[in-house]
Amino acid sequence: KINGDRLWDSLMDMAKIGPGVAGGNNRQTLTDADAEGRALFQTWCEDAGCSMGVDQMGNMFAMRPGEDPEALPVYVGSHLDTQPTGGKYDGVLGVLAGLELIRTLNDLGIKTKHPIVATNWTNEEGTRFAPAMLASGVFAGIHTQDWAYEREDAEGKSFGAELERIGWKGDEDVGARKMHAFFELHIEQGPILEAEGKDIGVVTHGQGLSWTQVTITGKDAHTGSTPMPMRKNAGLGMAKVLELVDEIAWSHKPHAVGAAGHIDVYPNSRNVIPGKVVFTVDFRSPDLSVIEDMEARMKAGAQKICDEMGLGIEFEKVGGFDPVAFDEGCVTAIRSAAERLGYSHRDIISGAGHDACWINQVAPTAMVMCPCVDGLSHNEAEEISKDWAAAGADVLLHAVLETAEI
Amino acid sequence: KINGDRLWDSLMDMAKIGPGVAGGNNRQTLTDADAEGRALFQTWCEDAGCSMGVDQMGNMFAMRPGEDPEALPVYVGSHLDTQPTGGKYDGVLGVLAGLELIRTLNDLGIKTKHPIVATNWTNEEGTRFAPAMLASGVFAGIHTQDWAYEREDAEGKSFGAELERIGWKGDEDVGARKMHAFFELHIEQGPILEAEGKDIGVVTHGQGLSWTQVTITGKDAHTGSTPMPMRKNAGLGMAKVLELVDEIAWSHKPHAVGAAGHIDVYPNSRNVIPGKVVFTVDFRSPDLSVIEDMEARMKAGAQKICDEMGLGIEFEKVGGFDPVAFDEGCVTAIRSAAERLGYSHRDIISGAGHDACWINQVAPTAMVMCPCVDGLSHNEAEEISKDWAAAGADVLLHAVLETAEI
Ligand SMILES: NC(=O)NCCC(=O)O
Ligand SMILES: NC(=O)NCCC(=O)O
Repeated sequence: KINGDRLWDSLMDMAKIGPGVAGGNNRQTLTDADAEGRALFQTWCEDAGCSMGVDQMGNMFAMRPGEDPEALPVYVGSHLDTQPTGGKYDGVLGVLAGLELIRTLNDLGIKTKHPIVATNWTNEEGTRFAPAMLASGVFAGIHTQDWAYEREDAEGKSFGAELERIGWKGDEDVGARKMHAFFELHIEQGPILEAEGKDIGVVTHGQGLSWTQVTITGKDAHTGSTPMPMRKNAGLGMAKVLELVDEIAWSHKPHAVGAAGHIDVYPNSRNVIPGKVVFTVDFRSPDLSVIEDMEARMKAGAQKICDEMGLGIEFEKVGGFDPVAFDEGCVTAIRSAAERLGYSHRDIISGAGHDACWINQVAPTAMVMCPCVDGLSHNEAEEISKDWAAAGADVLLHAVLETAEI
Repeated sequence: KINGDRLWDSLMDMAKIGPGVAGGNNRQTLTDADAEGRALFQTWCEDAGCSMGVDQMGNMFAMRPGEDPEALPVYVGSHLDTQPTGGKYDGVLGVLAGLELIRTLNDLGIKTKHPIVATNWTNEEGTRFAPAMLASGVFAGIHTQDWAYEREDAEGKSFGAELERIGWKGDEDVGARKMHAFFELHIEQGPILEAEGKDIGVVTHGQGLSWTQVTITGKDAHTGSTPMPMRKNAGLGMAKVLELVDEIAWSHKPHAVGAAGHIDVYPNSRNVIPGKVVFTVDFRSPDLSVIEDMEARMKAGAQKICDEMGLGIEFEKVGGFDPVAFDEGCVTAIRSAAERLGYSHRDIISGAGHDACWINQVAPTAMVMCPCVDGLSHNEAEEISKDWAAAGADVLLHAVLETAEI
């Protein structure tokens, strides 16, 4: 069993870096706080006897050597970056559980045939630079590195420039590493495990996602002196599209979801009718055809709304991945570890996207989930218990040990 | 007649300060560009033989002396500040026409009994610091100076601190000046004069306005893993309220208008359901009871929407003024000046708020309007012709001359 207190202490120490405003964290990717969090993780890994490799996307790989020089490593990990108003566990738990299992193996003097690599993937959250899971996506060959470098934040700073600025652009070619397997522990970010009183979610599938950035163009004009019939109110067009998005998501009960989290209004002045609105529609489902249906209906409906209102509209795909089925061998390793350890468990579909969803394309991959209070995540109030964290890390340890072979 | 070329050249010179991104201006109040525009205006006024007074709200008063030491001055003017994506004429025309009529009187060696004061009112636009017409409001005793100083921009900078920073906090007590009359020339910012081919609008009334800042509170949560029934989507609540605002405005055809130009979404991340949205509803009508009805229906309807969705909602009045009836004597002076000069004209209700609306409470006041292309304002593409500007300034000159007595 892993050391639950030590894991918890590390979580709390990491949470001191990039504190939020309400008890959580704002340690967005490629900020100074991100650099500080990375440095702490590196120190911890080196103290645990690992060697650190960093690739050109800033992905960090802390290796505990194996006994067979030919054997490919087993990777474990997740991400240290957070939302602007994020929690202390989303991503961080998976990275520090990887470290904790190495510390535990060191304590117990256990050697494995395959090396074990604790990993921190860059820019999983995708808030500062869309899309989410950017660096694991480059690793898996989904995006090119050049394209990733060109992603810009709201201030026009590029991913490439910011990665250099914080000093975490490594030398390794991205994706050059070959993996025996990849395991990711993550909080559920949804309500199911807690509601059913289960310790462990054995993640068999991940829902797919589609991010469509919608730009509606009207005409800036005076809110007082422009008669109602002459208005081209891009904000009103957006309002109708937001309602449509909600209606479409509900039409695919019980699994599909839809919302817009990102909305920018221009020029955003109290007495100017919005001339432009940019927002991102997030649709998800475990079923690809449902995602495609939602996206098509949203586009057709939004086009109709804008045509009727004399507004212009453009769509740009800014992120997305198909639903994922994880590797049966890895899933079984997790399920049987939970079983052996006596933790209550159930199979589950991940509602969120994870680095594991991309790595699954280049290596046998699966995920372990632990509950979180009220299913709440992407909120500073995100909370888990020390026992939940320890149970998740225990299952991770045993699944990894089975795969890395003692 | 005033010198139309000189007026136009001054408009174009002023427009070089704080250029926008699309041919207009971004010379928002109390920015460095505002300070630069003020300095240029001061130089021009001093060159025209005026003495400059500045009050503690940064209002500028350039005086051309009169012949009777007892006679109160006739004031003319408007504002030099612009919207973030504003035009070259909104406000600026009224200030520079005041200067131009002084230049013309100098050219012609005409003396008046009453002094004439060309005025620049601080923060008319209200974008950076709500409410609009802030400094003329303090002048007229509507707001206290302390309250005005505490207004904050989106970055939390206060009006008082920014006024000091740009070096335009004067010594004069605000509102200490007594006025014989106040005249303001302004572009219509609406489509009526151009559509009817009229040179001049004789402004008899101004619509009233109500700005209600609405804060809807939901719960930040993950857009992927939060099931639809568990969501508290503040952005969706806002969408429904925006539609309601539109519906309510249309219900009071033909005059009432309503929209939200300012919308901020928190935390504004693509994969976070909005936990908070802040937006400002702008309702206007020439009829006070209509404004009150719209505001009451919006609040009741928005409360119901939010109650049904499990969202919190709060309302804050951040600006407003009652409909205005301008002084009959001043209105007549404008109408007969237009008549005498042979300009086509019609009576008109101002759709926008103006400094004249507040000054009307402390002095006999009226406004002249000239057309603008397509009725477009609060847009960098705002346009007028040199002839329209000259006609407006001519009428202003003659109304002022009649009132200031040769
Ligand atoms: N786990 C997580 O929140 N990932 C961010 C990508 C997503 O929006 O699902
Ligand atoms: N004239 C003008 O645009 N004033 C700003 C105040 C308003 O919104 O009416």
